[in-house]
Amino acid sequence: MAALIPEVVILRLPLYFRTLALLKEEKTEIVSSQELGARLQITPAQIRKDLSYFGKFGTQGKGYNVSQLLDELRQILGLDRKWLVALVGVGRLGRALLDYGGLAPQGFHVLAVFDSDPRKIGEKVGELVIQDVHKLAATVKNQGINIGIVAVPPSEAQAVIDCLVSCRIKAILNYAPIAPVVPSDMRVYNIDPVLALQTLTYHLKSLNTP
Amino acid sequence: MAALIPEVVILRLPLYFRTLALLKEEKTEIVSSQELGARLQITPAQIRKDLSYFGKFGTQGKGYNVSQLLDELRQILGLDRKWLVALVGVGRLGRALLDYGGLAPQGFHVLAVFDSDPRKIGEKVGELVIQDVHKLAATVKNQGINIGIVAVPPSEAQAVIDCLVSCRIKAILNYAPIAPVVPSDMRVYNIDPVLALQTLTYHLKSLNTP
Repeated sequence: MAALIPEVVILRLPLYFRTLALLKEEKTEIVSSQELGARLQITPAQIRKDLSYFGKFGTQGKGYNVSQLLDELRQILGLDRKWLVALVGVGRLGRALLDYGGLAPQGFHVLAVFDSDPRKIGEKVGELVIQDVHKLAATVKNQGINIGIVAVPPSEAQAVIDCLVSCRIKAILNYAPIAPVVPSDMRVYNIDPVLALQTLTYHLKSLNTP
Repeated sequence: MAALIPEVVILRLPLYFRTLALLKEEKTEIVSSQELGARLQITPAQIRKDLSYFGKFGTQGKGYNVSQLLDELRQILGLDRKWLVALVGVGRLGRALLDYGGLAPQGFHVLAVFDSDPRKIGEKVGELVIQDVHKLAATVKNQGINIGIVAVPPSEAQAVIDCLVSCRIKAILNYAPIAPVVPSDMRVYNIDPVLALQTLTYHLKSLNTP
């Protein structure tokens, strides 16, 4: 099934999940695709189409049961379990991620942190001790890490990613501004401010070109 | 024209641009959609379809002229000019962005930085002095800022974004984990590690569900 669902739909599911979680906190029981769309600035038709890939949800003219749809999305996204994360690169960006505090409540537990700088190795960040990046493969295997976050300089990123590939990690969140080369069964989500800014300028330019 | 092009296509254009820039540095003159696809792990058919939205590029059976396509994409993406950026929020994430050094070479010049913490205001980061966030609107207008980067805590983000909207900024790169509400002519690109991780778990789950 997975292969038939457009990537862009999958990118929207976490937005639906987050908004439904908020609605549940607000004690909303039923939500229409109109209301959901207004919150997310996505058309109701788009929302209905996106969800239709995963089955039949909601009742015509009535809306979606918030708790039910939330549970379904939790399952679809694989959020009904804990995920174990290793962070590689404890520079400012890495530390900002560790500080952020929003990962663990969503089920993403950073269990190990790594750096290649000898001055950092052994230092504590929160509850964790920064390990030598050479121990990455061993730790990933021993601790059953599922996801790698790469926050190293671009020159080191492909080597770190190769190492994560070699220990059978299948999902990487990459902050290094490179286009990593990985096997086809591996997922890399690249977060790159330049690429983001370049899509924004496309829109700025379109606004000024009547 | 702009409205007809799927958002997902626009998100890929910067990837093509970056890869073509790299090919040009390597003195490659012609590239096929196969070669481009192999570098980006995108199918050649997808690349040809994406580019076809913007006109006729390349020669059947021969490939794309690297310099020409690079110039075309530079124009399409609006990268043939300087863009002026204000950063709001000079915590670890904000400082990581300022440190990164990859923005200015791509034409994104951070001209002003803001924070609400009185202990930070007046402090220098690189060449810039951190300003009181209350001066945001005035500075944006005076300096002709085009793009805002929001790296403040979630509780402050919507207020900062409202302020950017009020000074006619039309493009925001938002790092705060909220779903901002903005007018329809405004573009917000949200960078949120939780949303990224949740699309990765979707794929991890699919790998384990035969």
